[in-house]
Amino acid sequence: MKRTRAKETEREIPTERRAPRNQEPPQPTMGERRHRVAIEHVQPEIDGGRYPIKRVVGDTIVVEADLFADGHDVVRGILCYRHEQSEDWLETPLKLVTNDRWQGSFDVPQLGRYRYGVKGWIDHFATWQRDMRKRVEAQQDVTVDLRIGTGLIEEAARHAAGESGARLKNIRAALSSSAPPFKAQLDVLLGEDAAEAMADCVDRRLVTMYDRELIVVVDRPLARFGAWYEMFPRSAVNADHAHGTFKSCESRLSYIAEMGFDILYLPPIHPIGETHRKGRNNNPRGDSGSVGSPWAIGARDGGHTAIHPQLGTLNDFKDLMAAAKRKGIEIALDLAFQCSPDHPYVKEHPEWFTTRPDGTIQFAENPPKKYQDIFPLNFESEAYPELWKELRGVVQYWIDQGIRIFRVDNPHTKPFPFWKWLIADVKDRYPDSIFLSEAFTRPKVMYHLAKLGFTQSYTYFTWRNTKTELTDYFTELTKTEVREYFRPNLWTNTPDILTEHLQHGGRPVFMARLALAATLGASYGIYGPAFELYEDRPQKPGSEEYLDSEKYEIRHWDIARPDSLKEFIGVINRIRRDNPALQSDSSLQFHPVDNDHLLAYSKQSPDGTNVILVVVNLSPHHVHSGWLELDLPALEVQADRPFQVHDLLTHAYYLWQGPRNYVQLDPHSVPVQIFAVRRNLRREQDFDYFL
Amino acid sequence: MKRTRAKETEREIPTERRAPRNQEPPQPTMGERRHRVAIEHVQPEIDGGRYPIKRVVGDTIVVEADLFADGHDVVRGILCYRHEQSEDWLETPLKLVTNDRWQGSFDVPQLGRYRYGVKGWIDHFATWQRDMRKRVEAQQDVTVDLRIGTGLIEEAARHAAGESGARLKNIRAALSSSAPPFKAQLDVLLGEDAAEAMADCVDRRLVTMYDRELIVVVDRPLARFGAWYEMFPRSAVNADHAHGTFKSCESRLSYIAEMGFDILYLPPIHPIGETHRKGRNNNPRGDSGSVGSPWAIGARDGGHTAIHPQLGTLNDFKDLMAAAKRKGIEIALDLAFQCSPDHPYVKEHPEWFTTRPDGTIQFAENPPKKYQDIFPLNFESEAYPELWKELRGVVQYWIDQGIRIFRVDNPHTKPFPFWKWLIADVKDRYPDSIFLSEAFTRPKVMYHLAKLGFTQSYTYFTWRNTKTELTDYFTELTKTEVREYFRPNLWTNTPDILTEHLQHGGRPVFMARLALAATLGASYGIYGPAFELYEDRPQKPGSEEYLDSEKYEIRHWDIARPDSLKEFIGVINRIRRDNPALQSDSSLQFHPVDNDHLLAYSKQSPDGTNVILVVVNLSPHHVHSGWLELDLPALEVQADRPFQVHDLLTHAYYLWQGPRNYVQLDPHSVPVQIFAVRRNLRREQDFDYFL
Repeated sequence: MKRTRAKETEREIPTERRAPRNQEPPQPTMGERRHRVAIEHVQPEIDGGRYPIKRVVGDTIVVEADLFADGHDVVRGILCYRHEQSEDWLETPLKLVTNDRWQGSFDVPQLGRYRYGVKGWIDHFATWQRDMRKRVEAQQDVTVDLRIGTGLIEEAARHAAGESGARLKNIRAALSSSAPPFKAQLDVLLGEDAAEAMADCVDRRLVTMYDRELIVVVDRPLARFGAWYEMFPRSAVNADHAHGTFKSCESRLSYIAEMGFDILYLPPIHPIGETHRKGRNNNPRGDSGSVGSPWAIGARDGGHTAIHPQLGTLNDFKDLMAAAKRKGIEIALDLAFQCSPDHPYVKEHPEWFTTRPDGTIQFAENPPKKYQDIFPLNFESEAYPELWKELRGVVQYWIDQGIRIFRVDNPHTKPFPFWKWLIADVKDRYPDSIFLSEAFTRPKVMYHLAKLGFTQSYTYFTWRNTKTELTDYFTELTKTEVREYFRPNLWTNTPDILTEHLQHGGRPVFMARLALAATLGASYGIYGPAFELYEDRPQKPGSEEYLDSEKYEIRHWDIARPDSLKEFIGVINRIRRDNPALQSDSSLQFHPVDNDHLLAYSKQSPDGTNVILVVVNLSPHHVHSGWLELDLPALEVQADRPFQVHDLLTHAYYLWQGPRNYVQLDPHSVPVQIFAVRRNLRREQDFDYFL
Repeated sequence: MKRTRAKETEREIPTERRAPRNQEPPQPTMGERRHRVAIEHVQPEIDGGRYPIKRVVGDTIVVEADLFADGHDVVRGILCYRHEQSEDWLETPLKLVTNDRWQGSFDVPQLGRYRYGVKGWIDHFATWQRDMRKRVEAQQDVTVDLRIGTGLIEEAARHAAGESGARLKNIRAALSSSAPPFKAQLDVLLGEDAAEAMADCVDRRLVTMYDRELIVVVDRPLARFGAWYEMFPRSAVNADHAHGTFKSCESRLSYIAEMGFDILYLPPIHPIGETHRKGRNNNPRGDSGSVGSPWAIGARDGGHTAIHPQLGTLNDFKDLMAAAKRKGIEIALDLAFQCSPDHPYVKEHPEWFTTRPDGTIQFAENPPKKYQDIFPLNFESEAYPELWKELRGVVQYWIDQGIRIFRVDNPHTKPFPFWKWLIADVKDRYPDSIFLSEAFTRPKVMYHLAKLGFTQSYTYFTWRNTKTELTDYFTELTKTEVREYFRPNLWTNTPDILTEHLQHGGRPVFMARLALAATLGASYGIYGPAFELYEDRPQKPGSEEYLDSEKYEIRHWDIARPDSLKEFIGVINRIRRDNPALQSDSSLQFHPVDNDHLLAYSKQSPDGTNVILVVVNLSPHHVHSGWLELDLPALEVQADRPFQVHDLLTHAYYLWQGPRNYVQLDPHSVPVQIFAVRRNLRREQDFDYFL
């Protein structure tokens, strides 16, 4: 490989990170020189502590670390933590698990950010006690060793204040009254009371603190568990040829609530540009009747803080939010930071766009494709600080109206530092805010956006169909460190994505995909009514675009169709609400089945009491059966006792024993079984008289 | 778990690491806000960049990193590096491997420490070129886009100086002469010359630098590849009842050199304490004839910088070093930082020891066991700075005499920060110095000492005997990140350790263990002549102590015994020197054999030209045979062509083809086969006339 001497302009590392000129090897600071305990491999920790982990209110965070010291003295470990709004560190002991690995835990009852760290030190008094017990057992002369122990107490008593100081003074007094063979003195010195009092007296100078404070972002539970429903408000109307409004959306709320959705996500509700407005089926030249794409934001009526006049007024929108809230539904808005040519920013802040040499504003391109209805914002503009603040103002505006959930459109096309700044800034003031990253892009970019702060993320679930694909992907999401910062939100479809799989499977594939999304993912979403009415016509063969896509026209859906999946979705969402096992993803466990069309997996509630086992027939075409080989230890089921599985969809009950069990699923009735696993069947031994 | 509010004395995180009081969320600095490229997962990197990796002079270091940006612009990556004694960063490009993973490499021709880092940025001109090519191909009107490209050149030319400035001005001049249809202009703008000139013009403000500078410690090759021979100088004499001297050691040098050892390691050569001096077989009460343990350092004749008078003078020692050097052997000394009760430090610096309440100095203990001939230094003494400096002075003293290799006795019983400080300090001035950690302790402690700076480390090889044990352990050492910082030195035996395995296998087990140590480990060692004369009598059954251990008495060995392993060892060490494959460990690869008594593995030279395959019969009792299943792709051997294996011990040649080959080993002749694998056998196709 060619090696070039660094160029004049580039030779230097940017000043802020330059290595010190002083070539002395990095050395322990004077403080660190007396730290005998080493702390390593603290978990959870992302990229050496560079990024936070994520949890929700009420979680318990288990922290592990390697702690060890030179020699054979007794090591103490402490897990310390505090909410960032508190000055006080709280502490809880770490306990040795095995092989120098220690573990502790703390609860996060409050929204916001917590810091946590680990510290350790040598407990000289505990060391003395341990050694003394061995000496006494070996019947050695302990006269001098007793004086050493007494000396440790006296030294500590001289420095300790408060309660533990008083306690130590009592202990010291008890010691002075002893005489050979020192029985009473030994009892005091080897007692629990002395151990506890001395454990409180630590010379801070000798305490090792792990060199990074780690951070956990604590969200509300909806950040982890929620069913999303995406709907175009302009289509939410029953009358033909009418333009839906926030008012007509209100009448849809019952329908959505009956299906059990928690979040109603609306594509952009802002004024739609007219210049280069798209026609039906993405026709670059719309006609006068074209309603345009809601993502072409901005017109003479305003931009990102205005409302498209045909949808109603701000008050109508607030009414919709209130009505939704009464139904237990929260509204999510779309943050699509781009502009139509008619957006007010274009005139008011041309410096936020790229101006071409001919004086025109640069439209969006993916050469040779041109998207002349969209002007991207130029985040590399020298005026970026004002642009950033303006966009933060957009978020603030909708927060002021009561919105807390934002689905972010294409975040991977805006700079990473912008998102890091924006989300941290907003969540610092509104820790209940939720940002869903719609970044369908390369895996490392998706994960990086999650590390930077996005609360949830779209996933590749949409295209993962086979048993191997699903198993591999969800193992990566739930069994690697990805689980600490990337919260998957599984979408069956979106206005942009009608997968080929959905195009060719009919009703059975829609049922299976819904069940997979809703049980593999604590967070999932559908774009309806296209989904529940199994709309499956692509714009053209091989395309993932919908024919007559709602992105470019109003669609009137017959939501009362008797063959709608509405009931099925409602049942699934009720099962999700009733079963804590389905409300998080970290317990996901796959189980082998000897038929590649059958996928089986389980989830458990954190306390282990609720266990759900799901079996899905991935083929929409044929009945499939097979032998399921359950991982009984993972399910905490005993192999030598029968257990009950209760199909929550059909209400059938089965009695199983041992790992190997027969399953059969017909895609044309129900392609999925969702079993509640009940471990303890009552039997004769459970009666009192049997014991 | 009980949670307690932090105590008054302990509530605060030590000040130097306290979180900022300001509760603003951590935000990108103004500089970072314009950094569109993210850099993650740089490898090699130990614990998030907290510890250096290790290499030897002449190595090439391959660095990988994830680099990616928002959007679809062209990303550039650079690996930068410098020796710590140089101010100038050198640079070499990173190349995209796959999935946002980039790779580059640099050489380390110089002893000492190098720093390395990664940076990345958006290459706007390359992006423009890529897009322009697509536009041209689609036959679009590119008038305005041409002006954009020209503008990029002009902008760069305004700021660039020197060679690339001149180059850009030439390009700009070439552009102005163009006219529609811009053929010539396009040729210039899309040309390599423009690409290269523009690649040199980077706006430093927009360059992302990875947030840690990583460090590699570069040692001399002997730090990785060397055969060690440990010997008690006082036993190195042929006359009965005589005390060996440095002079008598000189006559042993030919013997050691003939066996092919690179390093002669001597247990402590300092005056031996008399108080509580141990007798034969560790008898706590020695008699007047007791020579004592060399590790009970210090007497009226001096301490760690003095020489035991019976061994000779400092000049004798220097003569020995010089004589050894002439034979290609380097002397290693023992650093055993502990004292006999007669050590001068005890009187001169009682503050460096622990004084008990009765005024006596604390001797070493592992309660209830007492080691009254040893006083440990008290590293927790308030006077520790003077103690540290004194011990550094000891190392400096022997460096001044010409010693560069130190085997460190029980480093795990002295504080970690001491070693970090000492080794960095010494190696900063003497980068050719080598510190071998004799820490037979828990794995995380051993690894931590290696991270802190020890050049090499003793390992558990000594007790790993079965196929599973050896495979698992050496996979951990060579296939995990441990390989980056922990250099194993494999010892067959030590004066403290005569393993049970060696006690019961006779000559075959000594041969097998020697071969395993010498081929599994680029660095290995034996304690002789006990080893080559297969001394196998324990002090008592179940003990690993030698009967009549040299630690407590002089042993006169019959090194001329005809059944000595001397010749065998000599052959093995010559094979090591002749075959670069055996001079490092990172290429180690195990190959399956269908007999658990047979272990097979290979190593390759970095350039792949030298391939060694080793098969060992682990059973000292029976002939074993089996089918070896070679990993041919790992060996870069084609399955469809025969290849030659040449047994370097017996000089037998075998012709093999395909992965499955038969092996049979008789422990009573030679329990090991060391094959040179030669991939390309000449055959008819190789003749000119065939082609």
